[in-house]
Amino acid sequence: MRINTHYQDLEDSYLFSTIAKKVAQQSAEHPEQKIIRLGIGDVTLPLCPAVTDALHAAVDEMGNKETFHGYGPEQGYDFLREGIRGYYVQKGVVLEAGEVFISDGAKSDLGNILDLFDRDNTVLVPDPVYPVYVDTNVMAGRKILYCDATEQNGFLPPPPQEVEADIIYLCSPNNPTGAAYNREQLGAWVAYARAVGAVILYDAAYEAFIQDESLPRSIYEIEGAKQCAIEFCSLSKTAGFTGLRCGYTVVPLALCGGRLNAMWLRRQTTKFNGVPYIVQRAAAAVFTPEGLRQIEENLGYYRENARIMAQALREMGVWFTGGESSPYIFMKCPGGMDSWQYFDLLLKQAGVVGTPGEGFGKNGAGFFRLTAFGEREATKEAMARIRALHEKL
Amino acid sequence: MRINTHYQDLEDSYLFSTIAKKVAQQSAEHPEQKIIRLGIGDVTLPLCPAVTDALHAAVDEMGNKETFHGYGPEQGYDFLREGIRGYYVQKGVVLEAGEVFISDGAKSDLGNILDLFDRDNTVLVPDPVYPVYVDTNVMAGRKILYCDATEQNGFLPPPPQEVEADIIYLCSPNNPTGAAYNREQLGAWVAYARAVGAVILYDAAYEAFIQDESLPRSIYEIEGAKQCAIEFCSLSKTAGFTGLRCGYTVVPLALCGGRLNAMWLRRQTTKFNGVPYIVQRAAAAVFTPEGLRQIEENLGYYRENARIMAQALREMGVWFTGGESSPYIFMKCPGGMDSWQYFDLLLKQAGVVGTPGEGFGKNGAGFFRLTAFGEREATKEAMARIRALHEKL
Repeated sequence: MRINTHYQDLEDSYLFSTIAKKVAQQSAEHPEQKIIRLGIGDVTLPLCPAVTDALHAAVDEMGNKETFHGYGPEQGYDFLREGIRGYYVQKGVVLEAGEVFISDGAKSDLGNILDLFDRDNTVLVPDPVYPVYVDTNVMAGRKILYCDATEQNGFLPPPPQEVEADIIYLCSPNNPTGAAYNREQLGAWVAYARAVGAVILYDAAYEAFIQDESLPRSIYEIEGAKQCAIEFCSLSKTAGFTGLRCGYTVVPLALCGGRLNAMWLRRQTTKFNGVPYIVQRAAAAVFTPEGLRQIEENLGYYRENARIMAQALREMGVWFTGGESSPYIFMKCPGGMDSWQYFDLLLKQAGVVGTPGEGFGKNGAGFFRLTAFGEREATKEAMARIRALHEKL
Repeated sequence: MRINTHYQDLEDSYLFSTIAKKVAQQSAEHPEQKIIRLGIGDVTLPLCPAVTDALHAAVDEMGNKETFHGYGPEQGYDFLREGIRGYYVQKGVVLEAGEVFISDGAKSDLGNILDLFDRDNTVLVPDPVYPVYVDTNVMAGRKILYCDATEQNGFLPPPPQEVEADIIYLCSPNNPTGAAYNREQLGAWVAYARAVGAVILYDAAYEAFIQDESLPRSIYEIEGAKQCAIEFCSLSKTAGFTGLRCGYTVVPLALCGGRLNAMWLRRQTTKFNGVPYIVQRAAAAVFTPEGLRQIEENLGYYRENARIMAQALREMGVWFTGGESSPYIFMKCPGGMDSWQYFDLLLKQAGVVGTPGEGFGKNGAGFFRLTAFGEREATKEAMARIRALHEKL
């Protein structure tokens, strides 16, 4: 038996384990210091009542012979697929029935979608980037090219001039930079993909943070995108589903004449058995008027954190992306420090934890990610500590 | 962009859609006839109270800021992994911590595990077989060999004499035949796999139906199996989780010196985000003394259906496998009929629906699958109708 040797090409990531180790050491040495964590990429507010009510009701259904649900459709129940189609209509996007697939999360689908493509494709990913885009392609032995996201282009790289890619990853609003493409910028990517015959894998996991109507919340707001893009989204950040697990993927029928849609259906019916009925009922509750109102409250809480952080950095004269339309802020380390140096300084002098930018790729060097998922008072306190630290530098 | 052209080699399966069409037509033509479905492979009893209680409690945790759970460990929470290790101890198998991976079902893992293997491996699957074993390998372009399960070997084929396989699928108790390997037979497969350096992918989804202590419920009851086998199991049939979605996969540390265990951990952390917290709490409740007692009641109900069906067939002189240690019965069609002929006859003359054996492979021709997941009275009535029909033949 021969193993898949491409796994040997994966680089071990010690980013979060190194951070955890450093934080534990600081805690042990200074137990009196209250450490504030702005490094986490996970939500902290609980599920909203519309969701827990739907879960309780669905659990009762599952405990009753007359209303029990066994195997469901692998691609998701229509009640949820229709709810998501309705959510897109609010964004000005009309999807066909059969274009929305329910899954246990965007991470699963972003990895599994690669089943549909030949190994012999060139992949283009921005740098810095969510490491999963790279690792899933290394596992398959694909050639990977990088597209530089830098301070100069506001961490929103335009399509390359000289490179022809086959599979392109875009994430907007971006993790880790928080930067979000506008319609014109995203339109340039759609035009590029169509010109070179590439497919865009569009990660829209943070779309719900966008309030600025000049920014697209779906790539399908761009003319021609249905001919070249698959969109991945999730309820993880939208509705606090990181521990409940539900996402969705849109594979347009206009893409490759419906071929990728048919292949994805076949992939999912062969290698997946659908999302729990109770979770799909919970997800459907999110897209009701009451559910949307309730998640909007939670999103508002995180947005206000981001606004407070952004305002503080602006006052301190620190360059950053994100903070608006995103729960992430990607700030330039002060005084030309490298991102691990700044990490250590911030942890030791201010008791604040963030994420060093170079953990997301070479262009992250010299930058630092803060997240807006913390508690309000702790977030304010963290920014006050950062301000005091910077004043001493 | 080049698609994965191996998808073009997949054969469309019209098995269940053809059955549905034929049943709908019969219903329309004879609305007075009560059709009894013994074709379904899905459970019909609701979740037991220990499970729904655990779900309600976990939903309440998720609705409260202090007890909310976000991202969990991709490989599953320790409380559940330990519960499963305890379940194996009851079967006489000791697993190491780190060998048990929680997933959303055996179907997902049986498909996704193939990520770990090179395309250039020869796959050996029994015929008849659960179609997913074949389709997932066709999608990857692997060479597939078949191993004949026949009336002569009791649908329990021994390892081949002249073929060297790299990846071997075994399912015991088997879907669709209901046949279960004993220790000696399974030992022969383990010896063969170790001799040729193959890995066995062992599907134990129906292990909970085994009561006969001479039959192994885990391949790890066989000496040497940890050196050559990965075991897949699920709560779908064990505890009625077909709509709740939770399974587990054991990748022994003794297999390839721990390499496959490490690769599977990397695969899951990269392409999966874990099973919902509430579902893992529900699964853990199954492995408590009260949970085990409650699922045993449901299993007993299905087992008694199977016993009634087997008894009736024995009295009618019909050859079959399964019925014991399994919710499936694979019976020989009377009078040398082919399996679709018998399907039509049974539907039209007796109003009973089963599954034609040839839907599972060429060796299923002339055989017919019945399942024990129906209601007691309907199951008895179905067997009475079959008996009356056979008497007229």
